[in-house]
Amino acid sequence: MMPFEKSEYLQRLAKVKESMSAKGIDVLLVTNPANMCYLTGYDAWSFYVHQVVVVALDDEMPRFIGRYMDAFCGAVKTTWLAKDHVHAYSDDHVQSLVKHPMDYMAKLLAELGYGDKTIGVEMDSYYFTAMAYERLRIGLPGAKLVNGDLIVNWVKIIKSDGEIELMRRAGKIVAKAMSAGAEAFKAGVRQCDVAAAITQAQIQGTEEFGGDYTAIVPLMPYGETAGAPHLTWDESRYTDNTSMYIEIAGAYKRYHCPMARTACLGKPSPEIERVAQITIEGLNAALDTVKPGVTCEEVEGAWRKTIAKYGVEKESRIGYSTGLAYQPDWGEHTASLRPGDKTVLQPNMTFHCIPGMYFDDFGVSISQCFRVTETGHEKMSQFPFELIVKK
Amino acid sequence: MMPFEKSEYLQRLAKVKESMSAKGIDVLLVTNPANMCYLTGYDAWSFYVHQVVVVALDDEMPRFIGRYMDAFCGAVKTTWLAKDHVHAYSDDHVQSLVKHPMDYMAKLLAELGYGDKTIGVEMDSYYFTAMAYERLRIGLPGAKLVNGDLIVNWVKIIKSDGEIELMRRAGKIVAKAMSAGAEAFKAGVRQCDVAAAITQAQIQGTEEFGGDYTAIVPLMPYGETAGAPHLTWDESRYTDNTSMYIEIAGAYKRYHCPMARTACLGKPSPEIERVAQITIEGLNAALDTVKPGVTCEEVEGAWRKTIAKYGVEKESRIGYSTGLAYQPDWGEHTASLRPGDKTVLQPNMTFHCIPGMYFDDFGVSISQCFRVTETGHEKMSQFPFELIVKK
Repeated sequence: MMPFEKSEYLQRLAKVKESMSAKGIDVLLVTNPANMCYLTGYDAWSFYVHQVVVVALDDEMPRFIGRYMDAFCGAVKTTWLAKDHVHAYSDDHVQSLVKHPMDYMAKLLAELGYGDKTIGVEMDSYYFTAMAYERLRIGLPGAKLVNGDLIVNWVKIIKSDGEIELMRRAGKIVAKAMSAGAEAFKAGVRQCDVAAAITQAQIQGTEEFGGDYTAIVPLMPYGETAGAPHLTWDESRYTDNTSMYIEIAGAYKRYHCPMARTACLGKPSPEIERVAQITIEGLNAALDTVKPGVTCEEVEGAWRKTIAKYGVEKESRIGYSTGLAYQPDWGEHTASLRPGDKTVLQPNMTFHCIPGMYFDDFGVSISQCFRVTETGHEKMSQFPFELIVKK
Repeated sequence: MMPFEKSEYLQRLAKVKESMSAKGIDVLLVTNPANMCYLTGYDAWSFYVHQVVVVALDDEMPRFIGRYMDAFCGAVKTTWLAKDHVHAYSDDHVQSLVKHPMDYMAKLLAELGYGDKTIGVEMDSYYFTAMAYERLRIGLPGAKLVNGDLIVNWVKIIKSDGEIELMRRAGKIVAKAMSAGAEAFKAGVRQCDVAAAITQAQIQGTEEFGGDYTAIVPLMPYGETAGAPHLTWDESRYTDNTSMYIEIAGAYKRYHCPMARTACLGKPSPEIERVAQITIEGLNAALDTVKPGVTCEEVEGAWRKTIAKYGVEKESRIGYSTGLAYQPDWGEHTASLRPGDKTVLQPNMTFHCIPGMYFDDFGVSISQCFRVTETGHEKMSQFPFELIVKK
């Protein structure tokens, strides 16, 4: 069921261990579901309970520790881990006021001989809660807990050719989903019906490649709140001479290709037209800068310089590393395209460049997911850089 | 845009403050997105960055603190909060290696005069990371940080009549979505196509009520891994004489009505038939027990006693409180239907009773979302208690 050969997982693991060694970390507790999947192939919606992948320098194989109902059918059958490297806590630990899963994990880690080691934890990872950290600290008094956040993420930032191929397929899916949304978007139609058309297309995928769920649901703020980029939809109906901001992705085997566009019902206002033209010119300038050796802030600088010609500024970053992801974000939390980010671009890094312009009563975004190639960039999806205009 | 009158939000807030007072908490930092929505009406997919709703005993109105692009168009326009109770950190705090949003929040809380107060934090809430906790502790050295987890959740456990009505609508949507899934499930069809049909129905909703996204994507483990309840789907095709475990929900304005069923292609195996019959008898026994005054463990006890007649046991809990939810879980993390849970049922509590039976190579579940009424229970959705059999 895994999308990659075992050898690729072993290569990933070797890079993670190299980084752990450099930081003096003996054992890394991986709690970010995307990182768990990246190292073991484990892919299930079980991250709503505490679960961990343990990477130890002294063990060739990682361990999975999770809930009983996820471990022995799910983790054993769907990953490359051996049964003796899969561990489970009993169900009375789940969302209990009495027992905490991390108490079980701490005890197990001590039994495995890690009770006096330097243990890295993903301090700012979504599913590693403050309580999880507290219980580990109490349960492992002899261990040194240190911040191991983003160790796996920084390995993930350079994709293998196999990963790139999955993202290209996601790119085909997102183009189809954006077309489905544009097609459905009409005056008199309910917002939920457009969301349903987009989601149907995302999950159905193409004839060749079935779609996966995306780490963010369709964002489609509309009308007066179209400048609030993270609103979703409701059941109200679209009216003429309005605009919608759409940000979606295609996903294939958890790999994402995001895309944003702005759609107008009727002739766009001069202001939207103007912002769209500036955005497209700035986006192209940013993309033209991309090649190995250039820094993230230089890419953003090309955008910034271009839009400044028109007296426009944008506060927020214009992009981020993307790829393998689970709810709630398809960003990888490593490099961002923004001032001060000195990350040097390398081949097979993948970014979503999304220079969103958000105003009080409208938002414009025309975005592109790209790969850094040996000499420039590859667009991971094909969709025209223009406003979607429905007459 | 809010689904409730301001007066209902004020009532909720009063109950939360009562609980805070009883626990000696002056200020509660609410980070669970469902709890943030419950108190303010804020509904956006922005919980992938750090954000907080501040409830202070000395202030009638909560405060929203979030990212700039979410605060002034989204939070101001879509909640009942006044503009002076909405605060934003600049974008260079987002997923940055240098600045952390909680540093901004700590500084703001100190400026508001809360630097020496007892501050409750939701210690085991999904989006309150270990790092968020650390930064708050460092940024508020004079404050006493205490565990305020589940304070809002325990208020939420009893729904208003308005909330119940939203759940009934979600119940109509989930029945439609389950029918769509059953209809699409055929030999030769790809798993992703069934997932697409279910999701389309979930989000389209009914003619009257548009659907919302659900806090968990369709869970639909199939074939050899149908006993791993949290697997999703892939692009492979169904074959005859196999079974699938389906767990989905309908959602309406973020309120959920979950439902699980087992579907078979061709005549079910005698073993699946037997487990289904036992499950239905046990589920009915549990539901028959439900009324105000009964405890959660008594409900589970009725199930346990029934299935024991057939020599069957189930380790995991058979249900949990449900309602307003965001990714990754529609459970409320308060009461569970399991041994030891002495929560006393009260009118307008709502549960998903899901006695899932998971085996090495198949899973059976027939579930029911219910409301506790004055005298018994109300089924929040209508769908027959039986195996879905496709000939």
